[in-house]
Amino acid sequence: MDDVVLDHHRAARTGVPEVVLGEWKTAAQIAAALTGLVARADGAGALATRVAASVAAEVVAQVPGAEYLEVARIVRVAGTRVRAVAGKVAVVAAGTSDLPVVEEAVVTAEFIGVEVERVVDVGVAGVHRLLERIERIRTADAVIVVAGMEGALPSVVAGLIDRPLVAVPTSVGYGVGAGGLVALGTMLSSCAPGVSVVNIDNGFGAAVIAARFARELAAARAGQR
Amino acid sequence: MDDVVLDHHRAARTGVPEVVLGEWKTAAQIAAALTGLVARADGAGALATRVAASVAAEVVAQVPGAEYLEVARIVRVAGTRVRAVAGKVAVVAAGTSDLPVVEEAVVTAEFIGVEVERVVDVGVAGVHRLLERIERIRTADAVIVVAGMEGALPSVVAGLIDRPLVAVPTSVGYGVGAGGLVALGTMLSSCAPGVSVVNIDNGFGAAVIAARFARELAAARAGQR
Amino acid sequence: MDDVVLDHHRAARTGVPEVVLGEWKTAAQIAAALTGLVARADGAGALATRVAASVAAEVVAQVPGAEYLEVARIVRVAGTRVRAVAGKVAVVAAGTSDLPVVEEAVVTAEFIGVEVERVVDVGVAGVHRLLERIERIRTADAVIVVAGMEGALPSVVAGLIDRPLVAVPTSVGYGVGAGGLVALGTMLSSCAPGVSVVNIDNGFGAAVIAARFARELAAARAGQR
Amino acid sequence: MDDVVLDHHRAARTGVPEVVLGEWKTAAQIAAALTGLVARADGAGALATRVAASVAAEVVAQVPGAEYLEVARIVRVAGTRVRAVAGKVAVVAAGTSDLPVVEEAVVTAEFIGVEVERVVDVGVAGVHRLLERIERIRTADAVIVVAGMEGALPSVVAGLIDRPLVAVPTSVGYGVGAGGLVALGTMLSSCAPGVSVVNIDNGFGAAVIAARFARELAAARAGQR
Amino acid sequence: MDDVVLDHHRAARTGVPEVVLGEWKTAAQIAAALTGLVARADGAGALATRVAASVAAEVVAQVPGAEYLEVARIVRVAGTRVRAVAGKVAVVAAGTSDLPVVEEAVVTAEFIGVEVERVVDVGVAGVHRLLERIERIRTADAVIVVAGMEGALPSVVAGLIDRPLVAVPTSVGYGVGAGGLVALGTMLSSCAPGVSVVNIDNGFGAAVIAARFARELAAARAGQR
Amino acid sequence: MDDVVLDHHRAARTGVPEVVLGEWKTAAQIAAALTGLVARADGAGALATRVAASVAAEVVAQVPGAEYLEVARIVRVAGTRVRAVAGKVAVVAAGTSDLPVVEEAVVTAEFIGVEVERVVDVGVAGVHRLLERIERIRTADAVIVVAGMEGALPSVVAGLIDRPLVAVPTSVGYGVGAGGLVALGTMLSSCAPGVSVVNIDNGFGAAVIAARFARELAAARAGQR
Amino acid sequence: MDDVVLDHHRAARTGVPEVVLGEWKTAAQIAAALTGLVARADGAGALATRVAASVAAEVVAQVPGAEYLEVARIVRVAGTRVRAVAGKVAVVAAGTSDLPVVEEAVVTAEFIGVEVERVVDVGVAGVHRLLERIERIRTADAVIVVAGMEGALPSVVAGLIDRPLVAVPTSVGYGVGAGGLVALGTMLSSCAPGVSVVNIDNGFGAAVIAARFARELAAARAGQR
Amino acid sequence: MDDVVLDHHRAARTGVPEVVLGEWKTAAQIAAALTGLVARADGAGALATRVAASVAAEVVAQVPGAEYLEVARIVRVAGTRVRAVAGKVAVVAAGTSDLPVVEEAVVTAEFIGVEVERVVDVGVAGVHRLLERIERIRTADAVIVVAGMEGALPSVVAGLIDRPLVAVPTSVGYGVGAGGLVALGTMLSSCAPGVSVVNIDNGFGAAVIAARFARELAAARAGQR
Repeated sequence: MDDVVLDHHRAARTGVPEVVLGEWKTAAQIAAALTGLVARADGAGALATRVAASVAAEVVAQVPGAEYLEVARIVRVAGTRVRAVAGKVAVVAAGTSDLPVVEEAVVTAEFIGVEVERVVDVGVAGVHRLLERIERIRTADAVIVVAGMEGALPSVVAGLIDRPLVAVPTSVGYGVGAGGLVALGTMLSSCAPGVSVVNIDNGFGAAVIAARFARELAAARAGQR
Repeated sequence: MDDVVLDHHRAARTGVPEVVLGEWKTAAQIAAALTGLVARADGAGALATRVAASVAAEVVAQVPGAEYLEVARIVRVAGTRVRAVAGKVAVVAAGTSDLPVVEEAVVTAEFIGVEVERVVDVGVAGVHRLLERIERIRTADAVIVVAGMEGALPSVVAGLIDRPLVAVPTSVGYGVGAGGLVALGTMLSSCAPGVSVVNIDNGFGAAVIAARFARELAAARAGQR
Repeated sequence: MDDVVLDHHRAARTGVPEVVLGEWKTAAQIAAALTGLVARADGAGALATRVAASVAAEVVAQVPGAEYLEVARIVRVAGTRVRAVAGKVAVVAAGTSDLPVVEEAVVTAEFIGVEVERVVDVGVAGVHRLLERIERIRTADAVIVVAGMEGALPSVVAGLIDRPLVAVPTSVGYGVGAGGLVALGTMLSSCAPGVSVVNIDNGFGAAVIAARFARELAAARAGQR
Repeated sequence: MDDVVLDHHRAARTGVPEVVLGEWKTAAQIAAALTGLVARADGAGALATRVAASVAAEVVAQVPGAEYLEVARIVRVAGTRVRAVAGKVAVVAAGTSDLPVVEEAVVTAEFIGVEVERVVDVGVAGVHRLLERIERIRTADAVIVVAGMEGALPSVVAGLIDRPLVAVPTSVGYGVGAGGLVALGTMLSSCAPGVSVVNIDNGFGAAVIAARFARELAAARAGQR
Repeated sequence: MDDVVLDHHRAARTGVPEVVLGEWKTAAQIAAALTGLVARADGAGALATRVAASVAAEVVAQVPGAEYLEVARIVRVAGTRVRAVAGKVAVVAAGTSDLPVVEEAVVTAEFIGVEVERVVDVGVAGVHRLLERIERIRTADAVIVVAGMEGALPSVVAGLIDRPLVAVPTSVGYGVGAGGLVALGTMLSSCAPGVSVVNIDNGFGAAVIAARFARELAAARAGQR
Repeated sequence: MDDVVLDHHRAARTGVPEVVLGEWKTAAQIAAALTGLVARADGAGALATRVAASVAAEVVAQVPGAEYLEVARIVRVAGTRVRAVAGKVAVVAAGTSDLPVVEEAVVTAEFIGVEVERVVDVGVAGVHRLLERIERIRTADAVIVVAGMEGALPSVVAGLIDRPLVAVPTSVGYGVGAGGLVALGTMLSSCAPGVSVVNIDNGFGAAVIAARFARELAAARAGQR
Repeated sequence: MDDVVLDHHRAARTGVPEVVLGEWKTAAQIAAALTGLVARADGAGALATRVAASVAAEVVAQVPGAEYLEVARIVRVAGTRVRAVAGKVAVVAAGTSDLPVVEEAVVTAEFIGVEVERVVDVGVAGVHRLLERIERIRTADAVIVVAGMEGALPSVVAGLIDRPLVAVPTSVGYGVGAGGLVALGTMLSSCAPGVSVVNIDNGFGAAVIAARFARELAAARAGQR
Repeated sequence: MDDVVLDHHRAARTGVPEVVLGEWKTAAQIAAALTGLVARADGAGALATRVAASVAAEVVAQVPGAEYLEVARIVRVAGTRVRAVAGKVAVVAAGTSDLPVVEEAVVTAEFIGVEVERVVDVGVAGVHRLLERIERIRTADAVIVVAGMEGALPSVVAGLIDRPLVAVPTSVGYGVGAGGLVALGTMLSSCAPGVSVVNIDNGFGAAVIAARFARELAAARAGQR
């Protein structure tokens, strides 16, 4: 069975510790899972995502060192081992409605160990604001674009950059847009090449993809790969 | 029953003669309908939309003065009475794939009697091309934006103009975008206020809305209303 | 970047100040947005739509001059600058179930500065009531028709008038009609030309489209355009 | 097992002989089924519905007395026993596109033995034409309303009559209306009480329901029940 | 406008007084509507359907003579004029889960003025129970079959009777059956001719259709038509 | 890696040789796959399912010993090793429209090595025919029920037997039933316990499940397990 | 009617006592149903599934001997007659989120009378854990695989065993996976032959199928069949 | 407008020349587009994807140097400038049915300038074949996994590697899996972090994402970034 074991050197370098999906779990189950991860993770700390505020209070009470990041809906146990930040990810969104998903991505990316640049006041209906901020976005190694409603922002951004772009549809919308299926469809149908997509509200998954790439690229630039 | 009769003076001014929906009709049925319209329309001519090429040949053979506009899929019988053009409509699209719907809108709008400006090489993934042409679009009284795939173009255009904008999703797309439901959903969910939407591939309907408005405005400017 | 700036003279004339979409925002976020709009809007006031009653109380407490219009679910800060009303919009619906969307449209249209005529007791299953009121509807420059359940009212009204008609499906319905997708589909599939459609429950969007048109027409009639 | 046998006296009175659903069957299978029905049906004849023209030619060649009704897509073997017509059914539709379903209903109803009144030039976008014909519709014992596109006609008709009304959505439509799901949803969501619905394009089923009712009522009026 | 007025003699005979759809209305709105109906209905009383228990208490307190039928979710104001019962309707269902819809149909049918026979312990997975009760069902003039989950009961019943059958899908179900769309689809796709369908949970509509027919038939038998 | 290898003794006893899914493959690809299976299968022969007639002719020409079973749409290469038949499977359906799926199941089950009993003239709308044949169905070790349209037959059969029952929805249906999703939903929502379901038109999969069980049971009865 | 009665000897041997579906029933209705089953079941006890905790408390208070199994959401009344356990079923799942469905299956299977092996820590994204446990799974006569999210586990397990496998999708998932339709679709589309599927969250149904099979096989091995 | 121009040095390094989407275009339109790209692309050549064989013949005849790659459905004009290959992409799939999408990805990736490793005989129902090939997959800088039917392969692969993984659902499937929506849903719902997804059958898009990454990483390793 040796051949199915992950090679640990590369894993350590790209750095995605296991994370607990908190939804559909009781506080006791989440607390036990976090405690287990902290115990075995060799100082890396642990995260639980999609934790409701009412559940989080109980989890935080049970797990030493845990804190609840309310907007991101994440319970975080900071690691004891300081990890060098490497690479940079931009997280782009139109505004306040999508902040929970933006923050889930930001917290996850920082946990993995990259620098994060937030650009959260650009929308397709006011394209000049995007154009004014495009150079800041271009400084990143990888870009996450979060959008609800019609979900058109990733297409416009992708036409202005050449960085890997991960699009995250959110469940923000009403009528036909309720639940995020319209935003998801828009992103999958994008005319702009180079756009990959994750599930609705999956800021965590987008951060894993973007941060992995950014760290790998940083390592290669540093001659470590 | 007098109260249900349309007031003819206003109808004459806004000018939308009845049009034949050719799909699901035989060539004989379409020809009969066109002949009937020509007979009663007092020189206004007649249109049949959504006519397949194979059916159109038979229709054209049966109706004097009929011609087939292949890209638009319209059989047109030109009117004998010349109508003054008034008002201007811009028809905006990303490229060649959406041309059949663009042309259905253009032919319909010209039939109603407005000037038409085509801007058909702008897409959301290359927003600078749109910015370069935005002044041309702004010269119109009303704007039709046609888009398939992710259908994001109307949102971006609406953020740059203050004209009434009618969005037309097209059935151009594949995978989740097949059939045009994604483009339709995007347009209905648009963050930009002022976007109204018609059915998938309904270039005819969009032209009626935009051309009516443009003519009405022109009439008001001319002091006729 | 000058070419992407909106021409302010035309914007001032059509008059659609920015509006806050209140859903998915906290009371603090809404209050901050309203305060910002009031500060920069040069006396035009501000609106926040889709605000739940429980959130609205907190917003009203934080924003001087704010009031909550419960049926319309709108928080409104009246402008200090009086704007001349120009043009007229009719808002047509079948009855009490659709009132929240009717009122969202009415409040928005009046905020933009048009006269509003409510006709809210007509339904397709009692067409004679509609026929009795059709002349009142015909006095408007543009017509908004709001309907839930089967959503057939816009088709019937469109066959009786030649005014621009914006159809608003509502989420009122049960079984297959739950959520408003049936009403939306009906309106998009309308046999009557000249019907444009906005998202489910989007009374705000319909009001922007109709009021813009009415004001523009009024301006043209007054020789201001 | 006697209790599961249908009582034959009542069956004979309401009169719905078994009918072959021709789709998904080979010509040989349809021909065999029709021949079997003719043999056992005691002079009642037989029908096969939803038969494509190419298949029908072969069926007609194999079954003595069979004829193909092309618009209705029905193969009919006339009965040898003349059955008294009793009761009356109106079949209402907007126009030529829905004729195949109208004719399927008409042929089936006449086969069962009722008088049929066609009213096929009324649509919701021209409600005055419907009002002019409403008295003719009211002479029927039961009414079938056939409609594609937005499917709103049954709601309007139901508000004007007190007869049992069976609504038949058709697959005529494009964009969101393609396949008939919008028309079906509209009919099921009708605000007008007394509307029952059958499957898309199921003119046969509607005719069975309406004709059964009309014959039963006629029998009761004649004192036969 | 005389021609759009319902003929009152026939309306009086079939007897479907207007009914209030209580959902999406406030208690005050329902109470006002009921009071209005009672005032003008010439002793016929009034019903409001789909009224939640919490709303109903307030309605009952405001409307003299009103009572709340909890299972049926109906507020009823009994009429002062006694109306002769005529005709008979059977309401068939599998069990307790579908009782709310069964009772909505029963209360409505009795309000219209027919005798009602409940047969509520038969299911497709125990067909012998249905066979044992089929003669009771056959005594009715029209049959309503209510079913959730897979919705197969109407097909089986329709194969055993020759009465008009109205099928009512219910929202009882989970997984793919949640909301009632599966039961609705089953009923619309029924192999058994003579099955007509109403919207999910629409016991009221089914009762109107069945009771109208039963009363009309009874009137014809009594020589009144 | 030894632990991931199937235990061959048990595999030989339950007996499901690999089978080629012919759809989306060229004739050359199917022929190559069949030839490969014949070569390695130790006399067991081979099957390719879902092969269109036009493709099959080419396959049969290329593979020695291959024959095309047209109704079942299967290319079969008979094995050279005779395998003892053990256990019995009943395949139940309503009629001729579902025969292609019935035959796919029958051919597959016989290929695996069980006796097959066809009962293909029973439907839910004529439940007495089913009752007359139920004893024949009960002689089987496992039962496959194939149904299109409303898909209710498995529920009724499951209430009458205690054998394992595999339900196969077919794509036979029109309107809401088109494609088989209604039949699938009905089967998954069945009130009768003990019904398991396979994909639409998957007669092959149902046969594998039923035949495996029947052979295993026969082996146990024979003391071989 | 004798022929529609189940043969009791076989029923006793396979052993699936009737079970109450608790959802959509009041506590009083559930208590009455359980009491009835206990009275007639000759010592077999009774189960009610899908009972919410708030309802269960009331049921347990009313039914002597009843207990609530919270994770499984089942109210159980243990039988007075001890039944011999025969056959073995494995219940396989990825983790804690799917436990409610796992436990519904386990409690039901044990109630029917089989040995149950839980393997609840294997997922497709860590296939080595599954490989390490595959021999334990292979000791069962039938296997139930429970999975939410992408629902891929049954396909992988089916490729490693030759036992009958019943797949249960769960409603655990978010975004496109919300409600369980994705997991259901994955299981129905499985490339691995021999996978049958039940409704979303239907652990009860899967247990009936698997336990029936296991007991039947055990009986055959014991020479009882 | 300078700020919206792409920085050409970086574009040249990552290397994704514009590509023509051939579907919905005439042969003349495709030929014109390819000719235009060849003219301006400075020796890079050009591709047109999703070109049907019948259309391709005409395109190849019109464009010098064009060839048609039939399985990939791509018309390719080789560049005159040789570009150094840098980085490596693995394309993983289960078998022959998905080859068209595999080849679209392979041809595109090679056109961009990376080494490609095909691993096209691994499926989730035979996980040992995947385990045997996992080391070959691990040699790539980025991995594309193509899968139809249940679409589970990306989840299993992602659990075994730490490379960026782009999942491509294909339209290969039948019943619920027809069109590829099930495979798409599975991939978006994947439990394995690090999986990003593109539209159904979009091998081109996946190749752009993966090849960009691989080239960028190679450039960084070579000290060019």
